[in-house]
Amino acid sequence: MKTITLLTDFGTKDPYVGIMKGVILSTNPDVRIVDITHEVDPQDVREGAFLVEEYYRYFEKGTIHVAVVDPTVGSDRKPIVFSKDGFFFIGPDNGLFTLLYDDAVRIYSIENRRYMRKEISSTFHGRDVFAPAAAYLASGVQLSMFGSVVQDPVRLPDLLPNVMDNGLHGEVVRFDRFGNAITNISGTVIQDFADGRPITITLRDMSFSTIHKSYYEGEVVSLIGSAGYLEFGLFMGSLREKMGLCKGDPVMITIL
Amino acid sequence: MKTITLLTDFGTKDPYVGIMKGVILSTNPDVRIVDITHEVDPQDVREGAFLVEEYYRYFEKGTIHVAVVDPTVGSDRKPIVFSKDGFFFIGPDNGLFTLLYDDAVRIYSIENRRYMRKEISSTFHGRDVFAPAAAYLASGVQLSMFGSVVQDPVRLPDLLPNVMDNGLHGEVVRFDRFGNAITNISGTVIQDFADGRPITITLRDMSFSTIHKSYYEGEVVSLIGSAGYLEFGLFMGSLREKMGLCKGDPVMITIL
Amino acid sequence: MKTITLLTDFGTKDPYVGIMKGVILSTNPDVRIVDITHEVDPQDVREGAFLVEEYYRYFEKGTIHVAVVDPTVGSDRKPIVFSKDGFFFIGPDNGLFTLLYDDAVRIYSIENRRYMRKEISSTFHGRDVFAPAAAYLASGVQLSMFGSVVQDPVRLPDLLPNVMDNGLHGEVVRFDRFGNAITNISGTVIQDFADGRPITITLRDMSFSTIHKSYYEGEVVSLIGSAGYLEFGLFMGSLREKMGLCKGDPVMITIL
Repeated sequence: MKTITLLTDFGTKDPYVGIMKGVILSTNPDVRIVDITHEVDPQDVREGAFLVEEYYRYFEKGTIHVAVVDPTVGSDRKPIVFSKDGFFFIGPDNGLFTLLYDDAVRIYSIENRRYMRKEISSTFHGRDVFAPAAAYLASGVQLSMFGSVVQDPVRLPDLLPNVMDNGLHGEVVRFDRFGNAITNISGTVIQDFADGRPITITLRDMSFSTIHKSYYEGEVVSLIGSAGYLEFGLFMGSLREKMGLCKGDPVMITIL
Repeated sequence: MKTITLLTDFGTKDPYVGIMKGVILSTNPDVRIVDITHEVDPQDVREGAFLVEEYYRYFEKGTIHVAVVDPTVGSDRKPIVFSKDGFFFIGPDNGLFTLLYDDAVRIYSIENRRYMRKEISSTFHGRDVFAPAAAYLASGVQLSMFGSVVQDPVRLPDLLPNVMDNGLHGEVVRFDRFGNAITNISGTVIQDFADGRPITITLRDMSFSTIHKSYYEGEVVSLIGSAGYLEFGLFMGSLREKMGLCKGDPVMITIL
Repeated sequence: MKTITLLTDFGTKDPYVGIMKGVILSTNPDVRIVDITHEVDPQDVREGAFLVEEYYRYFEKGTIHVAVVDPTVGSDRKPIVFSKDGFFFIGPDNGLFTLLYDDAVRIYSIENRRYMRKEISSTFHGRDVFAPAAAYLASGVQLSMFGSVVQDPVRLPDLLPNVMDNGLHGEVVRFDRFGNAITNISGTVIQDFADGRPITITLRDMSFSTIHKSYYEGEVVSLIGSAGYLEFGLFMGSLREKMGLCKGDPVMITIL
């Protein structure tokens, strides 16, 4: 039984996610559906891009990851499908999968009407295009059956940190439920940059010379979170609220 | 493996939905449970009535749809079960299923204690009556085994738009997560009313002479949403917040 | 197919719960996963303790209940596993399971690295320790294989009401979605205390001499809720909001 995961910005109040599941199960009942989240900030493709890169690897190989954050649904942006590292991905060609693209990835446009619902709305491709594509893919349809190769998929700019004026510059990209601020700077990038030298990490008017191991170690901590990225948190409280942090807040690392 | 869907106003913070699932699986492990939503506005039977009509058809035939928005639980309102178009429905007889009733539908009261939990509370029929009924129905219990026929089920008034003074009058019935305002006026009803003539659509102080195809086409748009109903939205924003819209806001369509 | 339930305070916006499910299914695809809630108030072990005691019994015997409310993750607090009444429980040794402990319960520390992910982070034991432990337990691993017996598990104080100055004293321990205030005083405890005599129940400046059967019976009601505990509610409204109630608000029962 194949697993299909769903990530959307549809929320959980509306029946849209349930409808996608109905379409999947009507097409192919022999799958298991797992929700990742449906609370990506509305139409925030960038946030979705970071999330997709975070969870996909924890599932069994062969899992089909459907991700729909799709503000331009109904335009000519393409629906796409591709595989990477033995996993499959389905969603809009709007940059949502930017962090997964490498030279080995071959992306297909979903064009074959046989693998869509009969009527295609211009507002709900989750139901009409992506859900059936996932169900058919789970049934064994080959990637190349869906459509032609997309040569130049849309990529979001500025997702990764960069080195400038002897500093490593990144930003806060999302907050988790506890109010921890998660950045786009991975532990590996910090190690490469520091190369054994002592560093200072700056966020707003806070600076840190230590990377902690866990939240319970201090009031305000900087640590490498469970996904391998630098994050900031407050023990038994929300750093986001306490400091009024925002997505996009700059984070800088310098050699001491 | 039969599918049982759940729609409630129980929210997802409390353990009530999990408990319903436990009861279902204890009674009949050979089912698949799919959540539609548990965030119907608390005790808003009217909102539930519009939702039920929207998602049920997307599932495979034989699916059992359990819907519980039940402010008068513990009173003498009946628990009911019925089938329509090859689907099954279970919930309270308080009008929640009004939009599904037609002359062919035969509704049964759930009275047979054999298909309930041993002790029936007066506050949680989701657990004690509806969940076990769904599990037994999935096991093959016939509708007529549950109880006697309900001759005159409760129906909610004023769910549908009406024509008055040469205008087609409806209202905003719910909002989705994006802040789009969804009405009770279907595209079919508009076509029948307009009969090819140009129309004006009015909501608050906004008026529209065009029905758009998708959100990305304009700032504020009116379009026929994915469920076939007229809705209003704002590209990359929440029309609900911007305009301070409310459930019940009147929507009028007139011939130009 | 074994059932694994999940209760956490991770919320549903972040991918953490989805990642736990991925780890479980990668380790043992032959399980069914049921969400109880992921919205325990952040790091509120006490709230979690009341919830765990509420839902576990409604599932089929053999079900594995994973509960993770774990503010001191990364410290030396132990991960534990135990069984009670034919159910299994996995989570941190921080008092989350206090209400389940009795003399017959034997608690095991999860120490065996064979049943964890290869790398153990200091921030996400849900993924690295608890999820794999649940998957292996479902595969038939014996409790004693996980580690040594924990002689003195952490217990939360003051979870239960007490009798003092001829009054039965308890408190509001949580609110449900409808704004009903749920206490830690069970109907059985009230019966034992009252012993047939008439009582007065006091919460803030409200007092009740009647225990109602259901919400629709009155404006403000006190009743024994579906989990067997005294609760207070407002018909078609939120008592929490109306009265500004808080967790910890004292509730007193006296003989009239």
